[in-house]
Amino acid sequence: MSIKLISEYASKIVPLDIEAMERARLRQSELVKPPGSLGKLEEISVRLAGISGDVFYNTDKRCVIIMSADNGVYEEGVAATPQSVTYAQTLNFVRGINGVATIAKHFNTDLIVVDVGINADIGHPQIIDRKIRKSTWNIAKGPAMTYDEAVSAILIGIEIAVEAVESGYKLLGAGEMGIANTTTSAAVLSALTGLSADKAAGKGAGLTDGAYEHKINVVKTAIENNKPNVADAIDVLAKVGGFDLAALAGVFIGGAMMRVPVVIDGFISIVAALAATRIAPLSREYMIASHVSFEHGFACAAEVLGLEPCLHLDMRLGEGSGCPIMFSVIDAACAVTAHMGTFAEAEINDEYLEEIRAGDKFSVS
Amino acid sequence: MSIKLISEYASKIVPLDIEAMERARLRQSELVKPPGSLGKLEEISVRLAGISGDVFYNTDKRCVIIMSADNGVYEEGVAATPQSVTYAQTLNFVRGINGVATIAKHFNTDLIVVDVGINADIGHPQIIDRKIRKSTWNIAKGPAMTYDEAVSAILIGIEIAVEAVESGYKLLGAGEMGIANTTTSAAVLSALTGLSADKAAGKGAGLTDGAYEHKINVVKTAIENNKPNVADAIDVLAKVGGFDLAALAGVFIGGAMMRVPVVIDGFISIVAALAATRIAPLSREYMIASHVSFEHGFACAAEVLGLEPCLHLDMRLGEGSGCPIMFSVIDAACAVTAHMGTFAEAEINDEYLEEIRAGDKFSVS
Repeated sequence: MSIKLISEYASKIVPLDIEAMERARLRQSELVKPPGSLGKLEEISVRLAGISGDVFYNTDKRCVIIMSADNGVYEEGVAATPQSVTYAQTLNFVRGINGVATIAKHFNTDLIVVDVGINADIGHPQIIDRKIRKSTWNIAKGPAMTYDEAVSAILIGIEIAVEAVESGYKLLGAGEMGIANTTTSAAVLSALTGLSADKAAGKGAGLTDGAYEHKINVVKTAIENNKPNVADAIDVLAKVGGFDLAALAGVFIGGAMMRVPVVIDGFISIVAALAATRIAPLSREYMIASHVSFEHGFACAAEVLGLEPCLHLDMRLGEGSGCPIMFSVIDAACAVTAHMGTFAEAEINDEYLEEIRAGDKFSVS
Repeated sequence: MSIKLISEYASKIVPLDIEAMERARLRQSELVKPPGSLGKLEEISVRLAGISGDVFYNTDKRCVIIMSADNGVYEEGVAATPQSVTYAQTLNFVRGINGVATIAKHFNTDLIVVDVGINADIGHPQIIDRKIRKSTWNIAKGPAMTYDEAVSAILIGIEIAVEAVESGYKLLGAGEMGIANTTTSAAVLSALTGLSADKAAGKGAGLTDGAYEHKINVVKTAIENNKPNVADAIDVLAKVGGFDLAALAGVFIGGAMMRVPVVIDGFISIVAALAATRIAPLSREYMIASHVSFEHGFACAAEVLGLEPCLHLDMRLGEGSGCPIMFSVIDAACAVTAHMGTFAEAEINDEYLEEIRAGDKFSVS
């Protein structure tokens, strides 16, 4: 039944509003600048029009949704960081002291923090408890979770995104926290695209060369042992993914369903985005890439999705930390569309010159 | 005497403060994230420490300095836009309705607009009148200006930057307005680097293929006829540059002299930056690239300067329009350095857990 619900949600995603995009292009052509000279800012505005049906888009209320969960494959020694960091950093999101929290605060962005499978009891009033189970199983030895659990995780993501939009958020970011989730992401990416394990896996948060070799082998083993059905992204997420990845895939589907853009962060986020497009292909139209992650497999996922990030920051922190910076670029696009003058308005006519001669003061921006 | 003044100013630029950069690196290593995981944000913070001598940097008060001037080479038909647009758009900066004005306003950035050679009387109370002369001469037929005029333009830029810093600005952007200035910029770039005219010149604000061929020939002719002394950037600016370019080169020198970072915008801005480094080599250390201009020759100038822009927006508007967006990225770097917790602070200890158990509310960023 639950799986039917996912299909039902996916079927609610509508294509971009071509007519609104045409109006947005017309608006861009009327603004006082050479045609196309604002490049990606113009493209973003046109896309927002397609997403919302409106040429003007208000990005004042925005958030990063962070899915936190632990991954059983941690026990293979694939991470440079202890598992307890998933728990500690999830608390630190709501304490406001780690990477994404600091950047989000600066960019007027709220955090929605969800526990979908942290390997500890957390019970914090500001962390949404949607824990499926304490950690997935070890993908090197068997599936990460049951198919039903993958369905549940995706539905949680959809529901959280829908609730966020219903409470007024017009711009979502997709972040995560889960030690060892670059390994599961590499496995999902490899399964979904056929990319070899060594190209899908990167050095994560700081592996040595030896540990990196081991990580590649773990990804290979996970795929060989579990034989995920590559034609069914839910099966791939269940067998070699994680609760964080599956829930994040749900966020992309939920945002698209609600006609709100969802900004991709780094490697894990873009793999979740890719999985989302295999479940609900139209969700791709609602995704906006942010930065080029330093992590190895990112570029492949971006290419398959056909998305070009605007930010080249060599970041590889995760958490959704790139999203608020990209929100700022989207803000710029919206500001231009809303406030820039048209050629008609920008004309220097006699009336304006009269005002100058009269010595009026004009406010400098 | 004036030329001596430029050398005197240039000699006041100090190298980056290595010791402060070391302290900034230490700070980065203490923040709760995998080492280096914030990539360019960390590099920016370290550079700001080198520039200012302080690990923490406040970017609240920032501006884009816009140098407006006309270029005699306009009469060769190298621009897709009428010359009167220099005048109109300069007024529109202070009216707050064109590209950089809209983006600057959104990012809490002031504009300092300077007339260094617009081909019309302008007389607006908010436009600083430092007009050297109405338009340069046509570089296809002779030098753009006298050597003394180039010196004056550079000094104007230095003075404007110094005054800006003295009045409290801690972050400068370098913008310009001057129809036909992609042609003069291509000529200066070609002269300073040896890059061929066809690689230095791009299509500007929208030339046809035929007009583009013509522009390349104009750049070649300008260099052949004027034979600028490539070992003397002031001579290059005088013979094939413009008042806008020379004054902007001064802004980079003035900012560096005052130990304040100057953000490069697009093609014209980066060519001015390159010229500044040939006059005052240490000024390079105070420059921060913003976006990769769509204009052809940008990449060469960036490579010669050894600067890697963070933003890939396919923009080619000029005006300084990329600077405020980059200010926002610099803001993110400063916010992380100032507000992110250290590993010690981020530790989840018994004391913090007690607070949760007591049901205290924590503010979500």
